[in-house]
Amino acid sequence: MLFFTQCFGAVLDLIHLRFQHYKAKRVFSAAGQLVCVVNPTHSLKYAPTRCAAVQASTEQSILPPCHHHEVVHDSQLLPCTCPLFSCPWEGHLEVVVSHLRQTHRINILQGAEIVFLATDMHLPAPTDWIIMHSCLGHQFLLVLRKQEKYEGHPQFFATMMLIGTPTQADNFTYRLELNRNQRRLKWEATPRSILECVDSVISDGDCLVLNTSLAQLFSDNGSLAIGIAITTSKVHSSEAEM
Amino acid sequence: MLFFTQCFGAVLDLIHLRFQHYKAKRVFSAAGQLVCVVNPTHSLKYAPTRCAAVQASTEQSILPPCHHHEVVHDSQLLPCTCPLFSCPWEGHLEVVVSHLRQTHRINILQGAEIVFLATDMHLPAPTDWIIMHSCLGHQFLLVLRKQEKYEGHPQFFATMMLIGTPTQADNFTYRLELNRNQRRLKWEATPRSILECVDSVISDGDCLVLNTSLAQLFSDNGSLAIGIAITTSKVHSSEAEM
Repeated sequence: MLFFTQCFGAVLDLIHLRFQHYKAKRVFSAAGQLVCVVNPTHSLKYAPTRCAAVQASTEQSILPPCHHHEVVHDSQLLPCTCPLFSCPWEGHLEVVVSHLRQTHRINILQGAEIVFLATDMHLPAPTDWIIMHSCLGHQFLLVLRKQEKYEGHPQFFATMMLIGTPTQADNFTYRLELNRNQRRLKWEATPRSILECVDSVISDGDCLVLNTSLAQLFSDNGSLAIGIAITTSKVHSSEAEM
Repeated sequence: MLFFTQCFGAVLDLIHLRFQHYKAKRVFSAAGQLVCVVNPTHSLKYAPTRCAAVQASTEQSILPPCHHHEVVHDSQLLPCTCPLFSCPWEGHLEVVVSHLRQTHRINILQGAEIVFLATDMHLPAPTDWIIMHSCLGHQFLLVLRKQEKYEGHPQFFATMMLIGTPTQADNFTYRLELNRNQRRLKWEATPRSILECVDSVISDGDCLVLNTSLAQLFSDNGSLAIGIAITTSKVHSSEAEM
């Protein structure tokens, strides 16, 4: 009996996800974008276990992990901690993607424009929703984080990082777009390099920031659909240098 | 000697304002938009004096001021408190514009697209920056408010209200745009009617919300340039009904 109840629950979940996927597709249907349902990742920061990844490269000596605001000039040769979960893994830039896929089971999607559908927005902070996005010959990491910067007041922070150097990141622009209930919010910026550490981007607030009330206005049945687009244009069309 | 020092200071201020105006114009130069420098308005909420406006209409009986979330069905006949400063003035919708101009000396600008340049962003909360915007046959009120929703953490809230009924407001879409330092933030929504009270819009967070760090990234020399556009389109182009 329990087995059938669980099966029925699973089928209902699948129908619900399919429905959310369908609705997100309708909203972001202009370019037939790929919609990806992203489940929350519980932060390992507060968990007793540590991820079991083996250090990917042992040929060269490993330098200490990068710190906030540190400028890494020759990052191809520098190791860095995995930017997520305060995972103690260290490795070269070239193997970050395989580490994220293998150890943290983060999906990778293809395409210039995709829709990131984060589920279970109600979960308590800290929670991350993460996906990798492969386009224009590079891999990007989208991180949506629910965090309490001010105690008792969780906010959502969304940013895109290039799995590459800061110099490479300067060649791209990413756009995050929320669109629901006759409201639209767009954030455009140059992605940061993954070497700069996602924690510092979020603590600086240099990303898309949503209060809980605004996140609720944009979410549907506890899921938040974020349209993502990446372009190579270096200069914003209507922006002059100030 | 003091006179000359003061004159020199005033000239420097003028040059500074002119420079800010010029820079804002460069950023939002696409359509040759009108740039308006808006100085902060100190909230009268905490001041002992009350504004001395005379009630504009005495022919009809005056109903109590509107409350948050109250739905006003026949607002042409209903009076409402002035939406700003907790001013005790009451009057009909048709005379709100003249009250705001005469009593609160709020400027009114013409044109579908303007740039709102709010100065002195560093001033402590609560502070309002307000302007009226006349376009498409209607008057709109742009309110930028610095407020501490969470003690010790001021945020900026920007919204546009139609000086008209909720039904009239439904016919418009307003867009607020920040654009600086290779970052762009756009907020699009249907304006609320001024009968709904600006305080409730801000406390609901149903507006453009900026943390102090993000406001600093978008501001230049303590001033924040916000591009404003109003259109009559009722439906967002890429939004399907969910």
